[in-house]
Amino acid sequence: MSVATVDHDMLSALSRQLRVDAVRAADYAGSGHPTSSLSAADLMAVLLAGHLSYDFEATQNPANDHLLFSKGHATPLLYAMYVAAGAVSSEELRWYRSSGSRLQGHPTPALPWVDVATGSLGQGLGIGAGIALAGLRFDRRDFRVWVLCGDGELAEGSMWEAFEFAGHERLRNLTAIVDVNRLGQRGPTRHGWDTAAYARRIAAFGWHTVEIDGHDVDQIDAAYAEAAESDRPTAVLARTRKGKGVRAVEDAEGAHGKPVPDAETAIAELGGRSAIRVDVAAPEYEQPTRPADAGTGSNLAIPVYEQGHDVSTRTAFGQALAAMGHARPDLVVLDGEVSDSTRTSYFEAEHPDRFVECYIAEQQLAATAVGLAVRGWTPFAATFAAFWSRAYDFVRMAAVSGVGLCLVGSHAGVSIGADGPSQMGLEDLAAFRALWRSTVLYPCDANSTAHLTAAMSEHPGLRYLRTTRGEVPVVYGPEETFPIGGSKVLRSSAADDVTIVAAGITVHEALRAAELLDDEGVRARVVDLYSVKPVDVATLRQAAADTGRLVTVEDHWPQGGLGDAVLDALTGSTVMPAVLKLAVLALPGSATPAEQLCHAGIDADSVVDAVRDLMSESG
Amino acid sequence: MSVATVDHDMLSALSRQLRVDAVRAADYAGSGHPTSSLSAADLMAVLLAGHLSYDFEATQNPANDHLLFSKGHATPLLYAMYVAAGAVSSEELRWYRSSGSRLQGHPTPALPWVDVATGSLGQGLGIGAGIALAGLRFDRRDFRVWVLCGDGELAEGSMWEAFEFAGHERLRNLTAIVDVNRLGQRGPTRHGWDTAAYARRIAAFGWHTVEIDGHDVDQIDAAYAEAAESDRPTAVLARTRKGKGVRAVEDAEGAHGKPVPDAETAIAELGGRSAIRVDVAAPEYEQPTRPADAGTGSNLAIPVYEQGHDVSTRTAFGQALAAMGHARPDLVVLDGEVSDSTRTSYFEAEHPDRFVECYIAEQQLAATAVGLAVRGWTPFAATFAAFWSRAYDFVRMAAVSGVGLCLVGSHAGVSIGADGPSQMGLEDLAAFRALWRSTVLYPCDANSTAHLTAAMSEHPGLRYLRTTRGEVPVVYGPEETFPIGGSKVLRSSAADDVTIVAAGITVHEALRAAELLDDEGVRARVVDLYSVKPVDVATLRQAAADTGRLVTVEDHWPQGGLGDAVLDALTGSTVMPAVLKLAVLALPGSATPAEQLCHAGIDADSVVDAVRDLMSESG
Repeated sequence: MSVATVDHDMLSALSRQLRVDAVRAADYAGSGHPTSSLSAADLMAVLLAGHLSYDFEATQNPANDHLLFSKGHATPLLYAMYVAAGAVSSEELRWYRSSGSRLQGHPTPALPWVDVATGSLGQGLGIGAGIALAGLRFDRRDFRVWVLCGDGELAEGSMWEAFEFAGHERLRNLTAIVDVNRLGQRGPTRHGWDTAAYARRIAAFGWHTVEIDGHDVDQIDAAYAEAAESDRPTAVLARTRKGKGVRAVEDAEGAHGKPVPDAETAIAELGGRSAIRVDVAAPEYEQPTRPADAGTGSNLAIPVYEQGHDVSTRTAFGQALAAMGHARPDLVVLDGEVSDSTRTSYFEAEHPDRFVECYIAEQQLAATAVGLAVRGWTPFAATFAAFWSRAYDFVRMAAVSGVGLCLVGSHAGVSIGADGPSQMGLEDLAAFRALWRSTVLYPCDANSTAHLTAAMSEHPGLRYLRTTRGEVPVVYGPEETFPIGGSKVLRSSAADDVTIVAAGITVHEALRAAELLDDEGVRARVVDLYSVKPVDVATLRQAAADTGRLVTVEDHWPQGGLGDAVLDALTGSTVMPAVLKLAVLALPGSATPAEQLCHAGIDADSVVDAVRDLMSESG
Repeated sequence: MSVATVDHDMLSALSRQLRVDAVRAADYAGSGHPTSSLSAADLMAVLLAGHLSYDFEATQNPANDHLLFSKGHATPLLYAMYVAAGAVSSEELRWYRSSGSRLQGHPTPALPWVDVATGSLGQGLGIGAGIALAGLRFDRRDFRVWVLCGDGELAEGSMWEAFEFAGHERLRNLTAIVDVNRLGQRGPTRHGWDTAAYARRIAAFGWHTVEIDGHDVDQIDAAYAEAAESDRPTAVLARTRKGKGVRAVEDAEGAHGKPVPDAETAIAELGGRSAIRVDVAAPEYEQPTRPADAGTGSNLAIPVYEQGHDVSTRTAFGQALAAMGHARPDLVVLDGEVSDSTRTSYFEAEHPDRFVECYIAEQQLAATAVGLAVRGWTPFAATFAAFWSRAYDFVRMAAVSGVGLCLVGSHAGVSIGADGPSQMGLEDLAAFRALWRSTVLYPCDANSTAHLTAAMSEHPGLRYLRTTRGEVPVVYGPEETFPIGGSKVLRSSAADDVTIVAAGITVHEALRAAELLDDEGVRARVVDLYSVKPVDVATLRQAAADTGRLVTVEDHWPQGGLGDAVLDALTGSTVMPAVLKLAVLALPGSATPAEQLCHAGIDADSVVDAVRDLMSESG
């Protein structure tokens, strides 16, 4: 399709209306980004009228194109497009940025046409690449992915991870439309209007590039048509003027992120209000046969491990994932070039068609997973726990979007041994707990890991599984269940003196400590808090009430992890127990795993010492 | 300098020795990355013998070059270089990766010749660019910065932020030496031996590039000489063979990150052990007149605000920083293209020569700051609190390095208003608390902000200041002091019923709640916990003992922030009070600041309700 079928007068009227509605929206709100919207109005008018294939009345149609505003602040334009498409009433713009309105300052999936929340710059293109990959490789459907990018956000490294990924995967169904309006929030961007500077860089990453005047509808139309014909992803580098069409702000510094000074004059200057309705071309309806609907794992046989055998939880995760792959055609596994370490290589070996290598680019690893989830796939993405810190902003925004993601972090904690602090995830529990509706799991043995790997795949929202490098004994029998939000009391009696709360590697230290304490006549209850968030409040409070003393022990910095989760669970209970938190208290260097646990003060002997302290203080 | 002065036989013997020592080190340790070291041995032999200008006996010489191993896992090679330079004894390699050894698995500043900890890939080049910028623009010294990079890490977006930054700043003193050994940890990299693919990309970012055979010492020598002549940063793309020189592992998959299978045979194959000592060319000694020594701010006059006036804490931060710039010639301020919002624009206006624009590239923002700190400058880097999540891995590693950094996050919390969740820092307290020896500050008014901005500049390690967008009343008089680790009791009496602990924006809600409670005959103590880490344990415990009930209230998710810091401070105290934590409990959308605080359940009314609940439960 192309604007050859649409007349220029209509397009120019549509551009004007988009501009007027963008100005109106920000004016009603008294805030927002109209100037960033005005620059891209022509680009979006031509897209809406001539190239976007989207059924606003059947958002579930899997043949629909995807449109992402990577420059998420341009919502005045996005919502003006929805008005022009008849999806939102012109009246609703009055509530832009108001409390309770779905027309928020930055797009979120509160709107049915928005796939993911954007607004943290540099994320939309990578997620669009993930959606495009799903289209070509997994859905095998012909939809296109259009991503409106700002020029300022091209400074983000994540954009270059996306360019590299999309270029390498030859995502011909992906088009980046870059609104090169030369002005950032505080002044000129690094490259100003030098679209050639961007084109050189992007072309070097294997993309087709087109440089155009972003206010010339014929050039825009031709560029989009060229993109549709390309066998590679295309970047349309459109030279535009920020605030275009409103003299008071056009190409002016200091006009970012605020309403235009005199909306009435601006609207008159733009030709006044209109009520153009674009019939956006809707694709044929296709049955949404998404793989997630294909099976829910009834024939799932996860691996079972014999009690007492030594198996690392990362291995159990990898083996469970590989087994799940047979029952769950919706699973796709993504790697950050560490699959041999995280053990996603086991899945790759059995399901190479559903394995995506993202190389050492954790932001794109997360973005690809988000894109696959948008298309209904169930992505598992794994890297070292420490390296998820590289993608923290992507994960944060995925949580805001409510996207269903399974993330796995291996090599958690000091117990990895000699590699030292750069490779140790010691802040991941804190980081993942502090995200909207996240789930944080940290199993101690192979059977619980296999169960939780299966359980997390059917849980909503952002889920994080923390695995451990070294081998540990299998603690649980195969009949045990591990509901998310639960815990396991591994030792208890009617007369326990103290409760030791642990998870992952420290469960084994806690069990050893309990044995050592037995010899001293101290009875210790041991709780395996494998679900760090949500946490089993009832069991913890019961333990607090029964024993009056708690020691928490975790292979993590003292802040924001297991210990804090326990303290939080105890707030609001009528009687607070005496609590001692054990966590990593010294900067680790190289050492054996056992030495590391000892130096960190989280081994069995440290737990015994802590219990003794607690007994003598509160005895 | 060039290897023209060194004979080929000597160089080839040196390469062999570096390889032998790398093999030996990993063999002693039983772990490590010898194959990643073998590929780069010739590159480093030529550098050490012919181009590096470094005085191993005067590490404080400001004329010294800097050598960073961005591929930090190649420590067997790095330490072999130290042996060849006579800085480390050959014997010490026996302790490689042992407990207590400074020869850790990945480099850390435990060694005097290591500037920063590396090992999380993709960080060394950006930090090297920061050091190079310091050299050209601030130190104005002639040292060079050499960064050994892996090919795998070129997938990281942070590398492209670094290429863009260094290209734009024309850092001619920076050389990236890319060891293109084609094999990552799990198999082939994306581009294999296609050095042209890398060269195209890097050249597009404004660098000079040279493609060479990384085992040909003449080519290597010529490339380094060319780099020294270039008016731009240079990338030497060296085609190498992983495991070079050891038949059992050369160019073999599955040989990453482990000792070579038969070290004795490998050492024999390499020609056996030797004891070559390279006289590394030392630069003339220069006086280390670092700006940090120039003044400690005795003539510092930070701004003073009148009580009751409305001033945002971000504004006070910006004004304090600008004032400090006059007394502190060591201050350098860095921006992520949001200086108008964070208010670092005030500093820029008065000290444009010490303002560095990093554009929207938060990883490079952090990396540049680290580089400046390495050179003795005192960097303040600011962006939105939410966007520090983009640089979390860099910040994590800076903490491991123990580098002195001042980071500032503006627009914290739901109180920013209509922009919505993408712009709200709601996890930053958790993220920054969970870092090694970090300091986390969160002032509530202009005077405390100004004081803490000054205080943080003289504090060691990683420091984070959280500022707020909206205007708030000035609470404190100009005579008040705000030591790091302290707090302020804003209201108290001998008969307080409850303590409300708040920080930042919620201090004002707490004060209003206390007034409302007064009317009900409930006496509330109010604590301003402006130092979230370290936290004022004594004051909190005293309040707990005095009032028996605590309400914490914070503009942050419930996990890992102020409330958890308070709970942690109370553990170990003999009597635990009843505690209720108030934090953001719903996903915010757009709304006014007041509406946001209300919806989140952290406004004055919510505090009053919480106190009532607590009084009725524990009354």
